[in-house]
Amino acid sequence: MLAEHSPGFDPATPWLDCETLPTRESRLFQHFKVRRRSPHTEREHDFTRLLCPDWVNVLAFTAPGQGGELLLVEQFRHGIDASTLEIIGGVCDRGEAPALTARRELLEETGHAAGRWLELGSCMPNPAVQNNRCHFFLALDCAPVAELDLDPSEELRVWAAPWAEAEALLRAGTLDHALVMAAFLRLFLWPGWGELERTLRACG
Amino acid sequence: MLAEHSPGFDPATPWLDCETLPTRESRLFQHFKVRRRSPHTEREHDFTRLLCPDWVNVLAFTAPGQGGELLLVEQFRHGIDASTLEIIGGVCDRGEAPALTARRELLEETGHAAGRWLELGSCMPNPAVQNNRCHFFLALDCAPVAELDLDPSEELRVWAAPWAEAEALLRAGTLDHALVMAAFLRLFLWPGWGELERTLRACG
Repeated sequence: MLAEHSPGFDPATPWLDCETLPTRESRLFQHFKVRRRSPHTEREHDFTRLLCPDWVNVLAFTAPGQGGELLLVEQFRHGIDASTLEIIGGVCDRGEAPALTARRELLEETGHAAGRWLELGSCMPNPAVQNNRCHFFLALDCAPVAELDLDPSEELRVWAAPWAEAEALLRAGTLDHALVMAAFLRLFLWPGWGELERTLRACG
Repeated sequence: MLAEHSPGFDPATPWLDCETLPTRESRLFQHFKVRRRSPHTEREHDFTRLLCPDWVNVLAFTAPGQGGELLLVEQFRHGIDASTLEIIGGVCDRGEAPALTARRELLEETGHAAGRWLELGSCMPNPAVQNNRCHFFLALDCAPVAELDLDPSEELRVWAAPWAEAEALLRAGTLDHALVMAAFLRLFLWPGWGELERTLRACG
């Protein structure tokens, strides 16, 4: 473990429910039911829309001299009521370029900065209902430069995994967040992956 | 193109907006704002929860004698207001096992049935807010057995892509639905992929 928000902290400990309210709008989503008319059949149908900002995910590796390890974040996730292991990620602030969100989230969630940044493309998290994209970044030669700087509701542990271990977590289905898996797919399809993988394996 | 819902149909044609209403509950999601107390800090924070059923995605290939082609679906997606190219997918009915949903969606969306089914694991579409999983299936030796059987609001075109073309669409980022990308990652990590890929390439 590289860092955590307080000693003796276990991200898997459930939170206590205080209140649950149906809502039309939360911190992340504006929820709409839209009635639309088909241009083909002229019939009308209802569809769900969830309007939300863009997101980023960052595959961050420490410098080869520091082990070439993948930075992972362990935190309690309130959707599934359990803790997960994920790569660094977050929500773009209004007007914030995704490349800046990626740098900000790497620094805030892990206290690291990268020596080299590459864009790995993007995806649509759920085009059937959501209007946003998730942007993928590769952060290389990461090194610690600051303490964690978390939102009050963020409680997390930072781990660093050698590539062989990270790959095993992916193969075993432990890293099973769809957006994390999509980021790894883009990494594996990136033309530079063969050379980077050899470098990371040589660190192990 | 293998099939479409009507002649001269272009899935990219936008639908007409009739009505847009903020909502707390739509066909897919129940939307909640929950207040929870941290077991670590005793402080309370608000979180978004979207409760929804499980989903399935199906990587369906025709039999090698029929070209070993990947079945793809082109349809207008109301989240992004544009058409997409995706693999077969859908929502589990209440109490329906994901393996049955996969068979039902393959039949309804493409009119095909598979000679062989394999499970490719699953993912969490968005564990930060959603409580559901998306289950991945590999459907081999698919052949047409029926006409399309679509919901009234579903309008789609079915395409069949030789593996080299499907892979090019993935590399180019045309297949950029996160859940489709996650399904491909699980396919590439599946121990049988090397042999299947050789078979599919030999069809091309």
